[in-house]
Amino acid sequence: MTTAIALIRADQKKLNAVGEQLAGIPGITEVYSVGGQIDFVAIMRLPDNESLAELVTEKITKIEGISNTQTMVAFRAFSRYDLASMFDIS
Amino acid sequence: MTTAIALIRADQKKLNAVGEQLAGIPGITEVYSVGGQIDFVAIMRLPDNESLAELVTEKITKIEGISNTQTMVAFRAFSRYDLASMFDIS
Amino acid sequence: MTTAIALIRADQKKLNAVGEQLAGIPGITEVYSVGGQIDFVAIMRLPDNESLAELVTEKITKIEGISNTQTMVAFRAFSRYDLASMFDIS
Amino acid sequence: MTTAIALIRADQKKLNAVGEQLAGIPGITEVYSVGGQIDFVAIMRLPDNESLAELVTEKITKIEGISNTQTMVAFRAFSRYDLASMFDIS
Amino acid sequence: MTTAIALIRADQKKLNAVGEQLAGIPGITEVYSVGGQIDFVAIMRLPDNESLAELVTEKITKIEGISNTQTMVAFRAFSRYDLASMFDIS
Amino acid sequence: MTTAIALIRADQKKLNAVGEQLAGIPGITEVYSVGGQIDFVAIMRLPDNESLAELVTEKITKIEGISNTQTMVAFRAFSRYDLASMFDIS
Amino acid sequence: MTTAIALIRADQKKLNAVGEQLAGIPGITEVYSVGGQIDFVAIMRLPDNESLAELVTEKITKIEGISNTQTMVAFRAFSRYDLASMFDIS
Amino acid sequence: MTTAIALIRADQKKLNAVGEQLAGIPGITEVYSVGGQIDFVAIMRLPDNESLAELVTEKITKIEGISNTQTMVAFRAFSRYDLASMFDIS
Amino acid sequence: MTTAIALIRADQKKLNAVGEQLAGIPGITEVYSVGGQIDFVAIMRLPDNESLAELVTEKITKIEGISNTQTMVAFRAFSRYDLASMFDIS
Amino acid sequence: MTTAIALIRADQKKLNAVGEQLAGIPGITEVYSVGGQIDFVAIMRLPDNESLAELVTEKITKIEGISNTQTMVAFRAFSRYDLASMFDIS
Repeated sequence: MTTAIALIRADQKKLNAVGEQLAGIPGITEVYSVGGQIDFVAIMRLPDNESLAELVTEKITKIEGISNTQTMVAFRAFSRYDLASMFDIS
Repeated sequence: MTTAIALIRADQKKLNAVGEQLAGIPGITEVYSVGGQIDFVAIMRLPDNESLAELVTEKITKIEGISNTQTMVAFRAFSRYDLASMFDIS
Repeated sequence: MTTAIALIRADQKKLNAVGEQLAGIPGITEVYSVGGQIDFVAIMRLPDNESLAELVTEKITKIEGISNTQTMVAFRAFSRYDLASMFDIS
Repeated sequence: MTTAIALIRADQKKLNAVGEQLAGIPGITEVYSVGGQIDFVAIMRLPDNESLAELVTEKITKIEGISNTQTMVAFRAFSRYDLASMFDIS
Repeated sequence: MTTAIALIRADQKKLNAVGEQLAGIPGITEVYSVGGQIDFVAIMRLPDNESLAELVTEKITKIEGISNTQTMVAFRAFSRYDLASMFDIS
Repeated sequence: MTTAIALIRADQKKLNAVGEQLAGIPGITEVYSVGGQIDFVAIMRLPDNESLAELVTEKITKIEGISNTQTMVAFRAFSRYDLASMFDIS
Repeated sequence: MTTAIALIRADQKKLNAVGEQLAGIPGITEVYSVGGQIDFVAIMRLPDNESLAELVTEKITKIEGISNTQTMVAFRAFSRYDLASMFDIS
Repeated sequence: MTTAIALIRADQKKLNAVGEQLAGIPGITEVYSVGGQIDFVAIMRLPDNESLAELVTEKITKIEGISNTQTMVAFRAFSRYDLASMFDIS
Repeated sequence: MTTAIALIRADQKKLNAVGEQLAGIPGITEVYSVGGQIDFVAIMRLPDNESLAELVTEKITKIEGISNTQTMVAFRAFSRYDLASMFDIS
Repeated sequence: MTTAIALIRADQKKLNAVGEQLAGIPGITEVYSVGGQIDFVAIMRLPDNESLAELVTEKITKIEGISNTQTMVAFRAFSRYDLASMFDIS
């Protein structure tokens, strides 16, 4: 499983619409609106790097109102939970 | 449930030890080592803000090798999953 | 009580109008125009995180002339004053 | 009344001690521990600029564990509350 | 006397016009065009904070060609000169 | 006359001592302690660039407690005042 | 052989088209889409500095959708591989 | 094949030694000393993310003199060359 | 002689035209196109600060395609060469 | 001829010594002490990239008191002067 975390900046007047659309994209399991220098943190859980590339370059970019996305690919995951099966990522 | 995302910078020579210790703290459900300007992204899921304060100011800071922590408190969560019950946060 | 502090940047030609409107929003108790890299500091005092989310994503963003808002959610408050009753936040 | 807002960075291992000491200084009415790139936001309410200078350069700097302080002096305050009498600043 | 220093960025094609207009505003005693990341440094000498707020939010912002102003309010002045009487600020 | 403005960062525990020493250096006419990301703004008025170089590289750097100095040389001055004679710079 | 590495920012909605076009330019041997604050890393291998200048100022800039390019010229290369012959750069 | 690009900052007095050691690590195919805000760009070509994590967190960090490493994982590669076979990465 | 160095950012599609025009301005002796975060470094050699002000605020700003100029005035020059006579600056 | 411009930060208490030593290195034709966020601008004129690498990684780094060097390699030079012969660089 490939996990990545995206830090997203969006148009301040469309925050809720953008949040809903992001969370509707398969592969994005959670979207959090936060108050710092960025507007959203999205957690992405996918089978491999190629499907991550597709999600970032062809899905997220299509959402109207997003001005900047910084995606951090996880090298390693440390967790007490069996995340792959919890989120059903084969 | 209060969710927060911490962006953590750590001593480059202690990365794996820091990752293991972070993931061992109750309330931190996942820790990802990433390659950007920060070293870890930690997802924290807690009952309320006060327990989050305790985790950030009294637990994380006790881990040797962490040089900087930026914690973003989530206002709102957007997700298809029932995260509170999946991670058993009452 | 949830307290948050917003650092706000606004159109230099509409500073006073923006200040008045911000201070008129229920939940924002004080707005200070300052001279640094930001234009206003707003103090927000609300019952919980969800009402804070509503204030930030649906009220502040509606004010014409605001270009950027960075909201810092307070984990803990340290004060000799009984702020919740002074500002009547139940 | 002169109001100022200080953004303070402190030693991560002394956060609670620093918060308590800051809130104990006359003239500092509230101190909030926050999770962004800074550690505390302190609200300072004083009779005039000179007493603010004393507070910033002679009181805050004496607290062990504070590494950086950015103080923003308020030009104007916008509020529905009579803050000077609420906080008894003559 | 309240003194403040403004770091001002302006449209590169209107530098001289902006400099002349700034120096014409009562309360601004000197304007220097400089070569760093900012374009002008303006020295403001006024009776009190309120007149400083008026100058910054209602006069400077009216000058066409100014894109950003960072105003630093002086807590304390250290000088061998009697500046208040030299610049006739009562 | 050569005028320059220095933005100075200093050890937070020595602010007043540094301010006094700076203002004692011939050529530095005013020193203001401010609250932003820097600690002092110093106004320097000298006969020519060479004496400015001497002041910056041989006098200011000798003051204990100064960690960083950014000096902006003024190309042009705009002012209603005859500054050279007011400050007696031949 | 002159080697240079370009860090490129592009319009989020044209990422794949930009990647294809970059990789089609003679002298650019590899283009990687990455997730940090930049969008692409391009590796350029050329006979000399002059042909590098031509590539950067006359070829890359012609690609629609590129907003910023930072090119780092390599002083020295350290490698176990015979890169000049592998990539046939005479 | 997983490709990643590392931007590395090192002790200015050990540049050549660091360059040689980096290029000696299996998985790092090329290391370029550059003149910008960073000191080296290293190209890493590996079978999968896990071996990349090992390289970054257990090999690179062991090299004496490296102060900071920013690793960008490539989502997608665009190239006319068959890089996997050229660099023999199975 | 007054020497200054300008770091210039320009429209990526007009780099060569901008370079030629800059080098044509009397007082600018050399213009280098570079690959970092800026596009050009221009070396300016002039009789005094006033002619430097004229060059920066009235000549450079007239060149179409320049978006930002940071000019650093030299306090002192260290060189084995007699630069004033080599570049014939009286 | 390869030309490069280095932006150098140095220990504030050793500025003049560092300036003299830099100007004494063959290949560095001019060193200017400036007042911005950096301390020196050095102009380097050399036969080729390899001798530039030697100068930067083996000569400049040996000077005591230099804390940071950013070297920008020139792609192209625009000038009315025959610089190679003026500075006798074969």
